Amino acid sequence: MIKPEIRILGFDDGAFVPKSKEKVPVIGVICRGGKFLDGALKTEVIVDGLDATEKITKLINSTRHKQQLKVIMFDGITLAGFNIVDIKKLYEETKLPVIIINRKMPDLKKVKNALKNFGDFRKRWKMIVNAGKIKECEVRENKKVYYQSVGLSEEETEEIIKLSTTRSFIPEPLRLAHLIATAIVKGESYGRA
Amino acid sequence: MIKPEIRILGFDDGAFVPKSKEKVPVIGVICRGGKFLDGALKTEVIVDGLDATEKITKLINSTRHKQQLKVIMFDGITLAGFNIVDIKKLYEETKLPVIIINRKMPDLKKVKNALKNFGDFRKRWKMIVNAGKIKECEVRENKKVYYQSVGLSEEETEEIIKLSTTRSFIPEPLRLAHLIATAIVKGESYGRA
Repeated sequence: MIKPEIRILGFDDGAFVPKSKEKVPVIGVICRGGKFLDGALKTEVIVDGLDATEKITKLINSTRHKQQLKVIMFDGITLAGFNIVDIKKLYEETKLPVIIINRKMPDLKKVKNALKNFGDFRKRWKMIVNAGKIKECEVRENKKVYYQSVGLSEEETEEIIKLSTTRSFIPEPLRLAHLIATAIVKGESYGRA
Repeated sequence: MIKPEIRILGFDDGAFVPKSKEKVPVIGVICRGGKFLDGALKTEVIVDGLDATEKITKLINSTRHKQQLKVIMFDGITLAGFNIVDIKKLYEETKLPVIIINRKMPDLKKVKNALKNFGDFRKRWKMIVNAGKIKECEVRENKKVYYQSVGLSEEETEEIIKLSTTRSFIPEPLRLAHLIATAIVKGESYGRA
């Protein structure tokens, strides 16, 4: 049984110019379940870099909010282009379970082909495979999200996804992280398609 | 009668080095009453500059969220040190009522003395005086805030302050703008004293 006010830390990145190698702000929003924002974090990662796992680990392990946190969420397994989050490593180093949410079933063939442009293709692809099987969860009638998770059972993961999806079709910390990250880069927030 | 989900745009600034003349991020949070975050805006103003009124006016008049907005709020009448918001001018140019919230009764003598260090003292002091009489509003038992407002009656202002003060002792858009603005500059949010 998951507590309705379980503290979830959800991340999203701001807009960026593809292949630019620029630094992109990444916003983490701490929510009480699907209810309200309790805190915020910020770091930066490099477009198509491979620093996301380390940056997020440091951010979480050094924040004063750490003790309250119970689970980490991402909107997709990559930040800033193809800066992949190694969710097993993140789980090991923070001791916090991780859930990846996808609005659509990821096209892994397409991802694999894109990653072949990188010199360290094998390393990146391994991080993707390492994240485990993609499962689906019906958050509302006829409305699904696709997820991967580490450190949680399937049942626990789905319970957390459902209880935190209150005001849109994705968990509230991800909705908020997206709005804030967009506003920081663009000057104002935009909704999702 | 104020609608419980009235869209309020609340501003707060990030941390900055006093007298540095640096640019400070200012975050605007759009809330549905005291309920939840619906959008975010960002601009920047100069420490001890006099560009706040113009920057905020432009930000509001150019955002796609403008039509939904019904009232603007600030946590104190200054941003980034002594960058004063001319709330009458802001009201005239955006056609949106403005509420200034203070947690403590402002010490106007102290403000006046500090402003005397500025070459344009008279101009800045006039903006302070122009904002009108400071009134008090009991948001909870034995818990008051001090406010000024333009474009609203005393009754309307107090109704808006009360309905939006849900999770702390200040209106929700200001609580959120503070958390986000702090996180952007410092990497993580801090609570208020």
